[in-house]
Amino acid sequence: MPAMPENHPHADAPAPSPAPFSPQDQQAMAQALALAEQGFGLTEPNPRVGCVIVDAQGRLLGSGHTQQAGGPHAEVMAMRTARAAGHSLIGATAYVTLEPCAHHGRTPPCADALIEAGLKRVVAAITDPFPLVAGQGLARLAAAGIQVEQGLMAEAATAINIGFFSRVLRQRPWVRMKVAASLDGRTALMNGQSQWITGAAARADGHAWRRRASAVLTGIGTVLDDDPRLDVRHVPTPRQPMRVVVDAPLRTPVTARLLAPPGEVLVYTSADETAQAAWLAEVQAAHGARAALGPDGTDVAPPLVQCVSMPGGPAGKVDLAAMLADLARRGVNELHVEAGHRLNGSLLREGLVDEFLVYLAPKLLGLGREMWSWGPLESLDQAIELEWGDVQSVGGDLRLLARPRGRLAGWLPGTP
Amino acid sequence: MPAMPENHPHADAPAPSPAPFSPQDQQAMAQALALAEQGFGLTEPNPRVGCVIVDAQGRLLGSGHTQQAGGPHAEVMAMRTARAAGHSLIGATAYVTLEPCAHHGRTPPCADALIEAGLKRVVAAITDPFPLVAGQGLARLAAAGIQVEQGLMAEAATAINIGFFSRVLRQRPWVRMKVAASLDGRTALMNGQSQWITGAAARADGHAWRRRASAVLTGIGTVLDDDPRLDVRHVPTPRQPMRVVVDAPLRTPVTARLLAPPGEVLVYTSADETAQAAWLAEVQAAHGARAALGPDGTDVAPPLVQCVSMPGGPAGKVDLAAMLADLARRGVNELHVEAGHRLNGSLLREGLVDEFLVYLAPKLLGLGREMWSWGPLESLDQAIELEWGDVQSVGGDLRLLARPRGRLAGWLPGTP
Repeated sequence: MPAMPENHPHADAPAPSPAPFSPQDQQAMAQALALAEQGFGLTEPNPRVGCVIVDAQGRLLGSGHTQQAGGPHAEVMAMRTARAAGHSLIGATAYVTLEPCAHHGRTPPCADALIEAGLKRVVAAITDPFPLVAGQGLARLAAAGIQVEQGLMAEAATAINIGFFSRVLRQRPWVRMKVAASLDGRTALMNGQSQWITGAAARADGHAWRRRASAVLTGIGTVLDDDPRLDVRHVPTPRQPMRVVVDAPLRTPVTARLLAPPGEVLVYTSADETAQAAWLAEVQAAHGARAALGPDGTDVAPPLVQCVSMPGGPAGKVDLAAMLADLARRGVNELHVEAGHRLNGSLLREGLVDEFLVYLAPKLLGLGREMWSWGPLESLDQAIELEWGDVQSVGGDLRLLARPRGRLAGWLPGTP
Repeated sequence: MPAMPENHPHADAPAPSPAPFSPQDQQAMAQALALAEQGFGLTEPNPRVGCVIVDAQGRLLGSGHTQQAGGPHAEVMAMRTARAAGHSLIGATAYVTLEPCAHHGRTPPCADALIEAGLKRVVAAITDPFPLVAGQGLARLAAAGIQVEQGLMAEAATAINIGFFSRVLRQRPWVRMKVAASLDGRTALMNGQSQWITGAAARADGHAWRRRASAVLTGIGTVLDDDPRLDVRHVPTPRQPMRVVVDAPLRTPVTARLLAPPGEVLVYTSADETAQAAWLAEVQAAHGARAALGPDGTDVAPPLVQCVSMPGGPAGKVDLAAMLADLARRGVNELHVEAGHRLNGSLLREGLVDEFLVYLAPKLLGLGREMWSWGPLESLDQAIELEWGDVQSVGGDLRLLARPRGRLAGWLPGTP
């Protein structure tokens, strides 16, 4: 992480409000967070933001969320809906899940629009964590006499855009590893049978997590064993996330289901250019215009199936850290991993997993496939220590979220 | 299970009250259940029962729980405390966690005492599930003009005495298997290190579960690997549960910590009488008067360490089902299992586990020891299907209760 400049804007950012937020504040921000989630699959590579505007009596005036990249931001959408309903915004309060922007991007600064509209108060769940802009939006609002507060439901607001923050601040995606297992930790029988360990509700929930990711990652082992599609089917989505395969030897069958439309596919391989070209030609023959002859391929567009040459790590394996950096350059915020024990184990060993999404089914399987091939450890001190996140029932299964302890420290401002 | 007689008392038992119980009812019964839990370790082999008596305005008049076997029952304790405080019981309501008894045992029938006291209403969480007595206590109360209701917090009341019901109705203890594991299902590293995977709060909680059991079971593998004490230390207890070791070859070292006082120890073995006598003599030498020379040993009393000859199953193993029947004959209601993967696997394979008590620590261990040696299965249809019970945080760990699906069906009246 780059050293912070001395004029780090956090130093001038408004302090978190000392007073507890009211139930009305809580309710409005919860609604804004729900709106932000409607941006899943829509706003990338930009953050998902929700905004709710209420009058002095707490009545809803307008609400909205950020649209596709280049489209209006949440604050503008909320002001539009309020005005379309004939409401004045003078004296109103806006709740935003992320600090309003203060810079000219593809759209004018939202902070200016809020000032012009005559709002009295703006509550932001969190400031923009990017060191060079953090606090500037709120500072501009405060300078214009608007009452500014922050820190309401900050944890949930951080989680919604954790991938965006990771890409911008760490130059790599937020890597979330999904595992579906029995209570005794088995992801399949020894013979490979795994359909289905968890129930329909957990599988649909898993698709909702795929949807919010920019890309879904798997390994060649899973492609050969299970031939998964890895697309989003059980929940509606505005687009399919990219599918990404770690396939050093380039053994993905050209008939593999994840190569089928819709959506883009990236195959990270250490195979040489000649092998890639031959494989892509086969894919093209099998799927028509879906394959490109490399990132700069000239004869097909769009290049929906691409190979990415990745300098081999030891034993010709794909360099996973380099792959993550490459995915970040391509705009991937959240990377959803659904892989087998080998790729899972490699990601764990290299410390590249940011979050675990574990579904535990109420059944016992005994001997079977493990979550990850990793270890054995020599001492309990070497265990990966986690922090539990949300734990809840999903249908008949349990869903556990967990992160390696202190996973946000050192790169996300304000986290221990 | 024996066929029910045609004059099965359930046919005449009062039907569950159709009206929902009031918040005051809920509160009083919750208090009665908490009192029943104060009988853990005290009332065995009898059930733990709590009783709360309130007046017509809902004011507490008296409360109590069943004392040691032969001592007063909960209803009598509650009436005593009410009278000691100078309260009249006429017109009062009693909440009991189990139907009042109607038979003369070591104490007179509680139903008669409640009738004599002039109570107006009796609410029982559950009827006595023993087919030959169920409903008779409530029927006697109803015949005396007392308003009788049942079914309030029935599930919790059943759980409190599940071991008693199991012993009386199935002639075997309720077998609860405790496992402490990492999120990836490992109970120890490959090198055996397991202290500690879970935190102090989970370990204390585990001792509270030991306390409520009549006996704690382990296998010779765990004795040799970990030399556990298996007593109750981290919570106060009125007595130590019996310790039970499955040790076909009788290899338990005479210096093993679980042979030390206080509490009784049973060793189920297929070793012959000569070997048992020699081993017990060694134990006696090591621990003084703690060892008996067999169940009918003549020279030492009390026989705190005993061997039980158990006809070997295949490969000289102890017949576990026969062991459970023997433990039931000895008055064991709940059997708390803290064993290694071998004995756990044997109990699972033979379908002898009634409940799982799983602590999941927020850590990952990778390759390591598994919860149970069992399988591999050939098809997911062969999985043991569970039903989740209570799931909650205990310190930094998660505690999951689960039972094989439909585990109460067929022997506990009124369960599907």
